[in-house]
Amino acid sequence: MSRGAILSEADIIQGYLAPLASEFAGAHGLRDDAASLSPPAGMDLVATMDAIAAGVHFFGDDPAADVGWKALAVNVSDLVAKGALPYAYLMSLAFPETPTLEWLEGFAAGLGEAQSAFHLSLIGGDTDRRPGPLSITITALGLVPRGGLVPRGGAKPGDRILVSGTLGDAALGLRLRSRDFPWTMAQEQHAHLSARYLRPQPRLGLVPLLRAYASASMDISDGLMKDLGRMAALSGVGARVQVEALPVSSAARSCLAQDPDVVAIIATGGDDYEVLATVPARVAGEFKVAAADAGVQLTDIGFIEVGSGVVLADAGGRAVALPRVGYDHF
Amino acid sequence: MSRGAILSEADIIQGYLAPLASEFAGAHGLRDDAASLSPPAGMDLVATMDAIAAGVHFFGDDPAADVGWKALAVNVSDLVAKGALPYAYLMSLAFPETPTLEWLEGFAAGLGEAQSAFHLSLIGGDTDRRPGPLSITITALGLVPRGGLVPRGGAKPGDRILVSGTLGDAALGLRLRSRDFPWTMAQEQHAHLSARYLRPQPRLGLVPLLRAYASASMDISDGLMKDLGRMAALSGVGARVQVEALPVSSAARSCLAQDPDVVAIIATGGDDYEVLATVPARVAGEFKVAAADAGVQLTDIGFIEVGSGVVLADAGGRAVALPRVGYDHF
Repeated sequence: MSRGAILSEADIIQGYLAPLASEFAGAHGLRDDAASLSPPAGMDLVATMDAIAAGVHFFGDDPAADVGWKALAVNVSDLVAKGALPYAYLMSLAFPETPTLEWLEGFAAGLGEAQSAFHLSLIGGDTDRRPGPLSITITALGLVPRGGLVPRGGAKPGDRILVSGTLGDAALGLRLRSRDFPWTMAQEQHAHLSARYLRPQPRLGLVPLLRAYASASMDISDGLMKDLGRMAALSGVGARVQVEALPVSSAARSCLAQDPDVVAIIATGGDDYEVLATVPARVAGEFKVAAADAGVQLTDIGFIEVGSGVVLADAGGRAVALPRVGYDHF
Repeated sequence: MSRGAILSEADIIQGYLAPLASEFAGAHGLRDDAASLSPPAGMDLVATMDAIAAGVHFFGDDPAADVGWKALAVNVSDLVAKGALPYAYLMSLAFPETPTLEWLEGFAAGLGEAQSAFHLSLIGGDTDRRPGPLSITITALGLVPRGGLVPRGGAKPGDRILVSGTLGDAALGLRLRSRDFPWTMAQEQHAHLSARYLRPQPRLGLVPLLRAYASASMDISDGLMKDLGRMAALSGVGARVQVEALPVSSAARSCLAQDPDVVAIIATGGDDYEVLATVPARVAGEFKVAAADAGVQLTDIGFIEVGSGVVLADAGGRAVALPRVGYDHF
């Protein structure tokens, strides 16, 4: 991002951001000090807040449209995992220098694509210039029927553990992006991993199904093992996952074939933004079928048990050793 | 802020932030991925988002408790100006390095004081380490009766213009803090200006009165003239303010007596976080009396007129020349 035309705060807001708020009456065209929302009667509002920063969660030279998409997608991912339908969001932008028109156009276009895909609208926020990395902080608001939020801490012994999509792709995409990628594969497999890193895909089709079936749910952002560990700890249970059951893309399978240690990336790499859910064993099959009908692949990877801790087991029942367990920001 | 004991993200959240969320059931002890809120029937939710960063909105060595207070107060100030009762907030923290226990304790204590004073609770957020200044981004949520948000753009010709409290104190407090303060005064006047810079005071007593009386309202954060200009522009009107009517503290009056140019600081300096409201002339007196009963001083500083632009007039009716009009972040 280089310095371009000098823009005022009002230019940025009215020129690039207000169009993203034009269909939500309570956003007041981003011209007021606050937005107003009238949640439908009988609904709870679900609120989550996540920031992404250049050099930490994305690369400063990632396409601006992908940065916009990711900033919104990582927040919508949390709403979806809670069984909440996306509703609206606020966004705080911190620019180290005035962004170029080109960057702003791309960023707003990516946000616009994400809004259309996830069905929510910008309603407010804040734009600032300050030192440090370009940062985008979003508060996303969703709706669930009253009391319907799907908790993280509800897993019960005997529940099956299911994950959406495939694991490890985004972490491998990050390795590819960082040019620390010793594995060979077809061009379209490269493209798949890159896209998975740049454009997380919240599984909106799961929203009503999580409410109907899941005893616990969260999104996987810091790696399967770490996030499953959090779910198990909060639920007061243990979890056992079969390594051969972990769902992987053909690109990740190709890496694994060349280097068995890639299993650690799959089990602990960050940025999956897939749903991790537990369901009573008797409805696991029904949940999977309903998800497939909604266009989302779910894979049964293991089960919840009495106890504590998370075990990743191989086909022979032995624990798979992992070098580290997920990402901590400190 | 220096590096102290090494804390994990979970230590920070569970040790220092979760106690701030303990009285709000839908915050789930900050252990879930999102909060749930059940706004009372018939109420709109009002949402606003503002960030403060070290070196921009506060000094890195300001007392941590004051930083916590300010981060929340600047957001509550927006809710109050909209006629909304504070309800809950989410907070995203970006630390350039792991904060010390002492800093975290002070910060959480300041937030706790602000929560008690403003009657709202932490319900969620995000904590991250990344380069750049320590930044605190808050999304504050408030409640108004359905359709009751007091707009920025509703000022009508003939309306009186009122402001709460006194103007310029925080900008003078910043000058004092920056050791760029050529004026002499009593120690307690120094202390007053410093406190006004460090601890903005949202005027909660005005919440129901703004809904009852105001045609337009906003908080003054970038200086009276700039913010009144925004209100007038959005309302499609002009505004005329009498310089001798601007409410000032004894400390600011002392600066003015030593240097008439201080009028520019009073009329354009940032960080007042006072309410700027317009009301039909026939109810202006009633509004003032009701505010005084609620413990808030309001001052009538001028009126709205047909036209555009904002004039600061002296007692002789001449426009007062001002060197610059308020703060722009770009």
